Amino acid sequence: MINHFEECIELLNKRGVTLDDIVECVIYLQKPYLKEINNEEIKETIISVINKREVQHAIITGINIDIASDDKVFYTKDLSKILDKDFSLYGVDEVLAYGICNLYGSIALTNFGYIDKTKPGIIGVLNKDKTRCNTFIDDIIGAIAAAAASKIAHGK
Amino acid sequence: MINHFEECIELLNKRGVTLDDIVECVIYLQKPYLKEINNEEIKETIISVINKREVQHAIITGINIDIASDDKVFYTKDLSKILDKDFSLYGVDEVLAYGICNLYGSIALTNFGYIDKTKPGIIGVLNKDKTRCNTFIDDIIGAIAAAAASKIAHGK
Amino acid sequence: MINHFEECIELLNKRGVTLDDIVECVIYLQKPYLKEINNEEIKETIISVINKREVQHAIITGINIDIASDDKVFYTKDLSKILDKDFSLYGVDEVLAYGICNLYGSIALTNFGYIDKTKPGIIGVLNKDKTRCNTFIDDIIGAIAAAAASKIAHGK
Amino acid sequence: MINHFEECIELLNKRGVTLDDIVECVIYLQKPYLKEINNEEIKETIISVINKREVQHAIITGINIDIASDDKVFYTKDLSKILDKDFSLYGVDEVLAYGICNLYGSIALTNFGYIDKTKPGIIGVLNKDKTRCNTFIDDIIGAIAAAAASKIAHGK
Repeated sequence: MINHFEECIELLNKRGVTLDDIVECVIYLQKPYLKEINNEEIKETIISVINKREVQHAIITGINIDIASDDKVFYTKDLSKILDKDFSLYGVDEVLAYGICNLYGSIALTNFGYIDKTKPGIIGVLNKDKTRCNTFIDDIIGAIAAAAASKIAHGK
Repeated sequence: MINHFEECIELLNKRGVTLDDIVECVIYLQKPYLKEINNEEIKETIISVINKREVQHAIITGINIDIASDDKVFYTKDLSKILDKDFSLYGVDEVLAYGICNLYGSIALTNFGYIDKTKPGIIGVLNKDKTRCNTFIDDIIGAIAAAAASKIAHGK
Repeated sequence: MINHFEECIELLNKRGVTLDDIVECVIYLQKPYLKEINNEEIKETIISVINKREVQHAIITGINIDIASDDKVFYTKDLSKILDKDFSLYGVDEVLAYGICNLYGSIALTNFGYIDKTKPGIIGVLNKDKTRCNTFIDDIIGAIAAAAASKIAHGK
Repeated sequence: MINHFEECIELLNKRGVTLDDIVECVIYLQKPYLKEINNEEIKETIISVINKREVQHAIITGINIDIASDDKVFYTKDLSKILDKDFSLYGVDEVLAYGICNLYGSIALTNFGYIDKTKPGIIGVLNKDKTRCNTFIDDIIGAIAAAAASKIAHGK
């Protein structure tokens, strides 16, 4: 099977997101439970999450929907409109995010719910940026961070 | 809020799927449990499923991904390739389908798993049609049928 | 089919939880989005959630596990131990809660994740009470509140 | 963290289920896709599934609910009644099973839906045995088999 890891990192970078941005989100989630933060361990855990096939498919699909919406290439023109405004009731972006979180158990899901409401770091930045469609990418980042934080919690 | 019901029916029709095709799938699922089949009741139940906002978003998003893949308009060219072949390990299509089924409880999910394996009627037809991308639409139809069958079961 | 509504309310009351406690949790979730809070509407929405069959099954099952753990009647004695300490990694309680939230869509799930982390009102009280097993009841209340808040959001 | 693997195997055995019974269910799911069946590899995969903490919690909790129902020790006497008859609309048993399947991605969920409908081998035996409560154990076995089959599919 083909590993799409590099493609995922490039897609994230293209949309202005670095691994360090995601590290910051994991720290936000884990700070209350950790005595000391090990940035390298967190980064490695994030990389292990992005190395999962189902996670790669979610990243590639979600970010490509955002870009296709910017490019206005969808058959249903309303779809771009719905996504652009990120109607708080849209929901498919969260469904995709749960597809990632579910692989890491129930703690990952509660982590995601929390980070999706509080919008720390890059998630808040993307959420405020109205110059392009960020409907899927913010949930994808939240899900990756939630999954990584859950994996670290289970490892302790 | 805007109701996208008509748009959903048009999108399904555009891809060769009618409400009667979905009725057939529901009958397939319900036959073992029903003494008599009431086609009108089944059709009304399917319509009530498609009237749910989250279901409409899933239908519009999923079918538009299929069409965008046919049109080769995605930024990541590999995405079309992955979807065209409907790699049995892709998974995002099922995640979207679960987003529909979950709204109708655990019976809807087992119904979906069953229909996704046995591929009755239009689902099998779409699955065999390699002239275009049917990655999302077959799971969406399966999910609508599974949800409707579950709703009928709960009503008895 | 038998409606277990009254039994659910009695079980919640027996464990010290009233409908008004749950109203308070819904207000906590909805405050940022609502101009005015209508307590009666919230209470009616909570009642409609508890009237769903799958929700009733989750309430009855979850609270009975808590009580059986207090009564030390489980075959596996370790189970009481695991539940009493509510190991943050137990997870089955959240899985049951997701069974409720899923019926109300993706907003309900993010609401639950948020409330499960912030533990407002009665959820925090139950969480601090170490005199008995509250492993399932706090997640059940969080899920009912998250579902009701989501239903109100979708209605606006 | 404590590993409850031995306890899980003992609980399964106590209820008449062996690892070989689960191997048979995995073969049932995988036969259409495999050229040759490697029983040892399947058994090792099942063991790796049962070694996951969240899976162990689901096994211990589910089987203990079945036993507590047989022993009639639940506070709500109706709960035993609901479980004994395994009302096809109960649903909490499937929710617990999904908690296992979700960890293994969307293929595991469709596998579960299929096996839950077709009830091969030990699952059918348990389903027909009305001398005791088998509400949770059959779904747990189905979920373990579905997860193992999915893991094998992803590995190919």
